[in-house]
Amino acid sequence: MNYRLLMKILSRILLIEAGLLMAPFLTAALYGESVLPFFWTVLAVLAAAGALWLAGRNADGEIHAREGFVSVALSWIVMSLFGALPFVFSGAIPNYIDALFETVSGLTTTGASVLPEVENLPRGILFWRSFSHFIGGMGVLVFMMAVLPVDDAHSMHLMRAEVPGPVKGKLVPRMRETARILYLIYIGMTFIEFILLLFGGLTVFEALLTAFGTTATGGFGIRNASIAGFDSLYVEMVVAAFMFLAGVNFNLYYIAILKRSLKGFRSEELGWYVGIVVFATVTIAVDISSRCGGFVSGLRYSFFQVASVVTSTGYGTADFNLWPAWSRTLLVLLMIMGACAGSTGGGTKVARLVIAVKSSLGEVRRQLFPRSVPRYTLDGERLDGAVIRNTLAYYSLYALIAVASCLLLSLDGLDLETTVTSVISCLSNIGPGLNLVGPTGNYAVWSGGAKLLLSLCMLLGRLEIFPVAMLFAPGVWVGRKK
Amino acid sequence: MNYRLLMKILSRILLIEAGLLMAPFLTAALYGESVLPFFWTVLAVLAAAGALWLAGRNADGEIHAREGFVSVALSWIVMSLFGALPFVFSGAIPNYIDALFETVSGLTTTGASVLPEVENLPRGILFWRSFSHFIGGMGVLVFMMAVLPVDDAHSMHLMRAEVPGPVKGKLVPRMRETARILYLIYIGMTFIEFILLLFGGLTVFEALLTAFGTTATGGFGIRNASIAGFDSLYVEMVVAAFMFLAGVNFNLYYIAILKRSLKGFRSEELGWYVGIVVFATVTIAVDISSRCGGFVSGLRYSFFQVASVVTSTGYGTADFNLWPAWSRTLLVLLMIMGACAGSTGGGTKVARLVIAVKSSLGEVRRQLFPRSVPRYTLDGERLDGAVIRNTLAYYSLYALIAVASCLLLSLDGLDLETTVTSVISCLSNIGPGLNLVGPTGNYAVWSGGAKLLLSLCMLLGRLEIFPVAMLFAPGVWVGRKK
Repeated sequence: MNYRLLMKILSRILLIEAGLLMAPFLTAALYGESVLPFFWTVLAVLAAAGALWLAGRNADGEIHAREGFVSVALSWIVMSLFGALPFVFSGAIPNYIDALFETVSGLTTTGASVLPEVENLPRGILFWRSFSHFIGGMGVLVFMMAVLPVDDAHSMHLMRAEVPGPVKGKLVPRMRETARILYLIYIGMTFIEFILLLFGGLTVFEALLTAFGTTATGGFGIRNASIAGFDSLYVEMVVAAFMFLAGVNFNLYYIAILKRSLKGFRSEELGWYVGIVVFATVTIAVDISSRCGGFVSGLRYSFFQVASVVTSTGYGTADFNLWPAWSRTLLVLLMIMGACAGSTGGGTKVARLVIAVKSSLGEVRRQLFPRSVPRYTLDGERLDGAVIRNTLAYYSLYALIAVASCLLLSLDGLDLETTVTSVISCLSNIGPGLNLVGPTGNYAVWSGGAKLLLSLCMLLGRLEIFPVAMLFAPGVWVGRKK
Repeated sequence: MNYRLLMKILSRILLIEAGLLMAPFLTAALYGESVLPFFWTVLAVLAAAGALWLAGRNADGEIHAREGFVSVALSWIVMSLFGALPFVFSGAIPNYIDALFETVSGLTTTGASVLPEVENLPRGILFWRSFSHFIGGMGVLVFMMAVLPVDDAHSMHLMRAEVPGPVKGKLVPRMRETARILYLIYIGMTFIEFILLLFGGLTVFEALLTAFGTTATGGFGIRNASIAGFDSLYVEMVVAAFMFLAGVNFNLYYIAILKRSLKGFRSEELGWYVGIVVFATVTIAVDISSRCGGFVSGLRYSFFQVASVVTSTGYGTADFNLWPAWSRTLLVLLMIMGACAGSTGGGTKVARLVIAVKSSLGEVRRQLFPRSVPRYTLDGERLDGAVIRNTLAYYSLYALIAVASCLLLSLDGLDLETTVTSVISCLSNIGPGLNLVGPTGNYAVWSGGAKLLLSLCMLLGRLEIFPVAMLFAPGVWVGRKK
């Protein structure tokens, strides 16, 4: 492990965080609130950044896979540790562990909250809470590559670790350029939603924060009743549409813009994603139609909730915890599946599901012809054995982590449904689960230890397991020979 | 597909079933009950066997993989269809679908029941119910190979399909001999338990039926309160010990007997199995100690229930549905894991878990060294890529089937916990689940369609998916060219 290089990267990340903290600082100043919580946080961040810069200033060598994975995981942890401070300093969330949970939930775009009430929070704190979604949505290190001078050789392993997925995109060669374009698409999408929400009668503050939570697929609301608090069909549909759009692989937007053609959207994964969303929306609408005055009204609630859950946003317009069995079961399954690879959404990704289904069904046939070598393709390209093995191993790791987390959480003694859906919701970066952590509940029911474990789950989910798992892998921390 | 050969195999299986039906027939006669339900069933079975024999009498050709898988799956289905008749004819279970569910549950050694009461059933019916466990425990086709003249070339694909597992044993070469020895071990184990239970004060009838349910890891009880109905610590411990022993790979007993040495039990899978059982027993005992008067008393209930669930038997001495969260969560996980490959127990098997854990953790390391080819071993032997891929695909298929079944069952509108644990319990051939299908509940809560689906799950679980999945695979039913 090249420790100096690691410290250099971390000092840069902290510098960026200090810069980003100016946004809530200014918001607080604008609304005449105390800026001290942000002031002290920025001081602490700069002090840490300075210390790391001093320690790592003579760094040389390249970023290899190890350094890439480890620095991504540590960057997210360090940003969360400092990002929690404004909540504590302002007294909004006095307990540091609670504040850390809320920050990790924000940065990983989970949206799980320990707060039963949000409308009474200071504007600056509300802004920081939703802004953390925006920061985490596209990735912090991708942002670093976009704004700081890092050459492509350095960037590759960072990008690989922070923007994972079963199949590497075709955008790999020119990392820095790619990072910039992805960020531009992301910012553009957020801006368009912001404008559309203004038309819906939201204030600038409300529209901006709601847009942050949507395109990052985060889900922190600024009303106690989440999006239902705006009581507007127009706002609901704008948010639902943008959640859905944020769940699409951003590479497809890039290609479509590059080629100036809708042909960029020809993607097998996108087809499955759209198909599954339509299937879930229609069947859930039928399932709940008797409870909410007919099928059309059912569609309104069902499309919003399906888009919110499948993209791992977690905004709510209805308490789906009270819905019938089919809807509840399907929503939990959508939580695990998640959105497209390369989107801001969480879950295990549609592309992995497609690969798993294809290769598993192929295995049935292989029983008949054990010596055959089946060819699986995705978007016409052959999936090699390594991709399939990696995908299936990813599911195994997801399951093993879920199982271990459920067991540890069950020591808190809550019911099975709350326990299991808390883990799934955090691992998939959704936000709400069922029962006690359902849309009207919150994560304050968990003990401090459970909240730390769930924070780890959120990080594991956001970074797709491998970078975080690498922190515990034997041999990773050994010094590299010069 | 060689249809004639298929019909020939099915006619033999039905002949065997007619012979096996003589046991409950004689039991009924012995206790002075009506033998008519069995008489009519035997007539029906013989008529069907005769028709199939006529259709398949000129069969030639070998049993290829296709014929092996399909005839195993169809044998189990046909045996269940006829095996349900005595329940209907006797009026014990008037509804045919209910009777079919009970029979599939018996043959697959699941032990899930639709009957709230069993103590009022005729002796002959009770015997048939528990005897079906004994028949299904070691496999019907293995029995056929053991008693009928089938040459080894024919047997291989049958054995492969009915006695699956991630790694093929070393016993493959002499199929018929192996089948006989496995059956002898199985019968011997059942007999020893029978004798030990007689010492515990059980009647011959009670001891025999309880032993059937134990060594087959079935779980149909003959008392309404299951094993708790005998109210004897001695009986509980005998049954628990034999459940545990039945969950061990029978090949190990074979090797130990062959080599006359305990070295036969050196097996990595066995080590994990023992370790997990000890861990679960101790932690659950701690978890429930305050409810049942101390740790030692906790151990009694916890060892019994862990052995019952991990081996997929399903006998009960306590209502674990009322236990705290840790115990309930852990028991559900043990249901999914199941016992050792090559045992009479169900679940996804410990060996698969070991392979999945090893290869998934290896995949973390592979992120660092993408070009490395890691070597995974089990019992010192290298696991090749095909075994790993098959294992991971098995979990994927298990998950996909579980997901689809949960969704379909949720149309019945029962709660999520009942729905999910019903599916897991049936797929893993356990018997009880949680909540409405917990130890004091039963599967009568489900609709007819749901019972058929759960019957299919039991068959999929018992035959480890592939043979049953093969029935739906494209191309399997096409005629083979001469």
